[in-house]
Amino acid sequence: MYLMRIGAPGAEKPVVRIDETHYIDVSDVTPDFDEKFFAAGGVALLAEKVATGRPREFAGERIGAPFARPHQILCIGLNYSDHAAETGQAVPDEPILFTKSPNTLVGPNDDVRIPRGSTKTDWEVELGIVIGRRSSYLGSAEEAKGAIAGYCVVNDVSERAFQMERGGQWSKGKSAETFNPAGPWLVTPGEIADVTNLGMWLDVNGVRRQSGTTANMIFDPYVIVHHLSQFMVLEPGDLINTGTPPGVGMGHDPQIWLQPGDVVELGIDGLGSQRQHVVGPR
Amino acid sequence: MYLMRIGAPGAEKPVVRIDETHYIDVSDVTPDFDEKFFAAGGVALLAEKVATGRPREFAGERIGAPFARPHQILCIGLNYSDHAAETGQAVPDEPILFTKSPNTLVGPNDDVRIPRGSTKTDWEVELGIVIGRRSSYLGSAEEAKGAIAGYCVVNDVSERAFQMERGGQWSKGKSAETFNPAGPWLVTPGEIADVTNLGMWLDVNGVRRQSGTTANMIFDPYVIVHHLSQFMVLEPGDLINTGTPPGVGMGHDPQIWLQPGDVVELGIDGLGSQRQHVVGPR
Repeated sequence: MYLMRIGAPGAEKPVVRIDETHYIDVSDVTPDFDEKFFAAGGVALLAEKVATGRPREFAGERIGAPFARPHQILCIGLNYSDHAAETGQAVPDEPILFTKSPNTLVGPNDDVRIPRGSTKTDWEVELGIVIGRRSSYLGSAEEAKGAIAGYCVVNDVSERAFQMERGGQWSKGKSAETFNPAGPWLVTPGEIADVTNLGMWLDVNGVRRQSGTTANMIFDPYVIVHHLSQFMVLEPGDLINTGTPPGVGMGHDPQIWLQPGDVVELGIDGLGSQRQHVVGPR
Repeated sequence: MYLMRIGAPGAEKPVVRIDETHYIDVSDVTPDFDEKFFAAGGVALLAEKVATGRPREFAGERIGAPFARPHQILCIGLNYSDHAAETGQAVPDEPILFTKSPNTLVGPNDDVRIPRGSTKTDWEVELGIVIGRRSSYLGSAEEAKGAIAGYCVVNDVSERAFQMERGGQWSKGKSAETFNPAGPWLVTPGEIADVTNLGMWLDVNGVRRQSGTTANMIFDPYVIVHHLSQFMVLEPGDLINTGTPPGVGMGHDPQIWLQPGDVVELGIDGLGSQRQHVVGPR
């Protein structure tokens, strides 16, 4: 199943995508794809409606993030060995956790806004995991599979000076408004043949900057969810950004940073693609 | 005004404390002290009810955290020069930000649960700030004063091995369930003569382990709120833990860690006190 939220920011309605031109409105089943929805069973609640509902045609509505603002956005750093190398950092022994403010979440084609004082705004195409049920001390990576509601494309936008040069921990460079485009779809696991073998790419102004595959993850999605559940309680709807392949702006020589007017496009096989205009500070 | 939430976990009702034995139920004004409440004007909404409502007597109800689970819990590290010294780290040039999972929030007298695999669970008495309105790019520390809804006592419980030895960033050692007791009260700024000059203390099993004053903060609450608003949008109800004075378990020689059966008591002048039993892992 392909979950989407369409409509104006803050007023998105939940729908299930049928194909490129059709969807089924499920707003009478759930007001939103949020913590309560996932906790109550998530996509299982939608099956009957999707089987019997009347398909409607997309009419150019804005696409929102495919789920509501989560309880938390967790991120894994340096999870591709070749990306760790380009940033000059060692391959980690276990997943490196950092966080983003949940209100960074925006739609896949919304503007990305460069924060005030920024000199080093950067891109990161990533596989996003959405948690499907409350999870603590999962017994194994295998058990973690059952805790995942679905997957999506995310752009883990980052301000490298804020991240690295402004006070030790990374969150400061990860949390500016618009810094977490997600979607267009939340794709349930059954639609994906092998989530550990998906091609991924990112272009800036039509130039390919990142290309990689989830096959090169150091820690795969199941290992990550199992690992994080040992340290905290994961809530339904929580988002986990799983790290980025090589080719970020920081990794180029000379380094490349996003500027107002740039266009960023990115995607992952089977999970759809995003397109963002970069705009200047408020 | 002194805001409290009393009742069973997940079913707390919002009240205003009048004195040690009386409160006014304000659940007909707002269902909770949450993001929506603070965004709508917060305590200003309560004035009439508090002036005209019938005082009730406390009847031994459990005390919850004095506000609902926030959008985010931000924390400032090494914000007391003497605490920085005891942990062997340099005094920072600007506030060090890290985060805790919002679902760590519990009541002031709830059990603190040692996580599985923990060897180094530690305590931290801290002044908590609750944000009163959506804030981004505040113009000055002075302007930040108007963005603060109130203050409370928090225990920023920490697992030092998870924090320092398990993957670089601190969140991993800060986010276990029960790791953020808050309350008993959210105290509005008008009730506090000088928030930058409050005594604070923490005892373990009746032995004084921390004693300090907010006068020794490197960055005061207004500087912190102004600073954070340059990097992210602060939402109404967001909690900011502002760092701890000397005397954490990690700072002792030999180091001292919490054990099941320990009792932790802590408080800040004018903001009330907490008492937690430490229990073993689930």
